[in-house]
Amino acid sequence: MTGKLYGVGVGPGDPDLMTLRAHRLISEARVVAYPTLAGTESFARSIAARVIPDAAREIVMDVPMTTAREPAQAAYDAGAAEIAAVLEAGCDVVCLCEGDPFFYGSFMYLFARLSGRFDVEVVPGVTSITACAARAGLPLAARNERLTVLPGPLPEGELRARIEGAESVAIMKVGRHLAKIRGVIDALGFTDQAVYVERATLAEEVICPLVEAPEKAPYFSMILLTKGADPWL
Amino acid sequence: MTGKLYGVGVGPGDPDLMTLRAHRLISEARVVAYPTLAGTESFARSIAARVIPDAAREIVMDVPMTTAREPAQAAYDAGAAEIAAVLEAGCDVVCLCEGDPFFYGSFMYLFARLSGRFDVEVVPGVTSITACAARAGLPLAARNERLTVLPGPLPEGELRARIEGAESVAIMKVGRHLAKIRGVIDALGFTDQAVYVERATLAEEVICPLVEAPEKAPYFSMILLTKGADPWL
Repeated sequence: MTGKLYGVGVGPGDPDLMTLRAHRLISEARVVAYPTLAGTESFARSIAARVIPDAAREIVMDVPMTTAREPAQAAYDAGAAEIAAVLEAGCDVVCLCEGDPFFYGSFMYLFARLSGRFDVEVVPGVTSITACAARAGLPLAARNERLTVLPGPLPEGELRARIEGAESVAIMKVGRHLAKIRGVIDALGFTDQAVYVERATLAEEVICPLVEAPEKAPYFSMILLTKGADPWL
Repeated sequence: MTGKLYGVGVGPGDPDLMTLRAHRLISEARVVAYPTLAGTESFARSIAARVIPDAAREIVMDVPMTTAREPAQAAYDAGAAEIAAVLEAGCDVVCLCEGDPFFYGSFMYLFARLSGRFDVEVVPGVTSITACAARAGLPLAARNERLTVLPGPLPEGELRARIEGAESVAIMKVGRHLAKIRGVIDALGFTDQAVYVERATLAEEVICPLVEAPEKAPYFSMILLTKGADPWL
C-alpha cells in the first residue's frame, strides 16, 4: 500500500480559519511538506505551526527567487521525488498550502507531477479574496454580478482593459505592482471604490481606502474594487 | 451592552470543511439565524445541523420564490428586525451562510441593514468554486492567470462575451440555465475543457465532463472551464 498525498489549504492567515479537516490532517501528520521562497519562512507553515506534531518530518521545497521557470521546476521536481519516496514507503504526506491549494497555489505543481501515480486529495481552504472582503466589510458579489480575479503582475494595458469591463474585481499579489495598479484605477476613475487590504486576518492586518495605502505593499496584499449593486435591494 | 452579529460561512457542504472558528461560534450559539427559500430546507442549516445546540433559538427568514425584489426585501427587513431585537437584548446572533457570507451570499442583505447599528463580524468560509476545483482535480488559476466568476442566469450574449475573453471560468448557479450555458460553451468550442460539478463535497456529488452532464441540474451546480497554462511549467 502506497501512502496518500493531501494538498491542504490552511486558509488566509488566522489559524482559526483552517477547516476542521485541515486541522485534523495536519495534527495527525507524520510527514508535512511545503515550499519556501529563497530560504524565507513558509507562510503556510507559519499558519499551521501550532498544529504540526513535533515529531513530524518536514519536507521543504526551496524555490529560488527568479522569474525564470526552470529553477522553480527543478525545485518541484526534487520535492516531488522526495514526497514520492515517502508515499512509496506507505506513509501519507500532508502538503501545506496558504489559502486554497488550487487558487493561485503552488500545490498544482506537485499535483501535476504526482496525481497520476498516487492517490491525491485536495482539501479546499478559505481564500484570501473572501477573507479580505470579510475583513473589509465589502460583499464581493451578489445575485447576477460578475467577479473578476486579476493578478497584480499583469501588464498595465491588460489590467486596464480587464478592470474597465468588470463589475467586482479582486487584484491579488499587489506587492511591488502597487504604483502601476493605482495608476490604472486612478485613470479609470474608480479610486473611490477601491480598498487596500494587507495580511488580512493576521494581527498586522492593514485595511484602508486605496488612496491611503502605504507606498510599499507586501506580496500578500490585495485591492478590492466593488462596482456592484446596492446590497439593500 | 448589545449583542454581536456573526455572519458565518459554513463552507460548501461537507461539515468537515467548516472552519474552526465557524464550528466554535455555532456550537456556542444561543441564537442562530438563516434564510430559507419558499419554505424549503436551508442548505446552510443542514451543513451545520450537528453543531447547532439543541437549546438554540432559530430565526428563520423565509424568502419567497420570485424574481421580484420587493418580497425578498420584506423578508430580510423582517428578519433584520427580529435579529435586531435579540441583539438589543444583549444576546449574540450567529447567522449561517452556505459557502462564504460575501460570495454570492444573502448575508449581505442583513449586513446592509444591521452593520451600522450593531457590531458585525463576517467569518469567511470555503467557497463552492475552490471546493469544486478540488473535487474535480482542476487547478483554478496559477501565476498570472485571470479567473472569471459568472452567474449562470446571465443572458446568453453576455455569457458568450465573458467566456470568450476569459482564461479560467467558474459558472455558478447553473440550475435551469444548463442548456443555455452548454450552447454557449459548445458554440465557442470549449466543451472539451468544461467540467460539470453538482453538490461538491456531499455524498450525492456528481463530477463529469460537461457533455455527460445530466439534463436537469440543481441550483447548487457549477461548470468549470480551465483554459489556463500547463501546470507542469
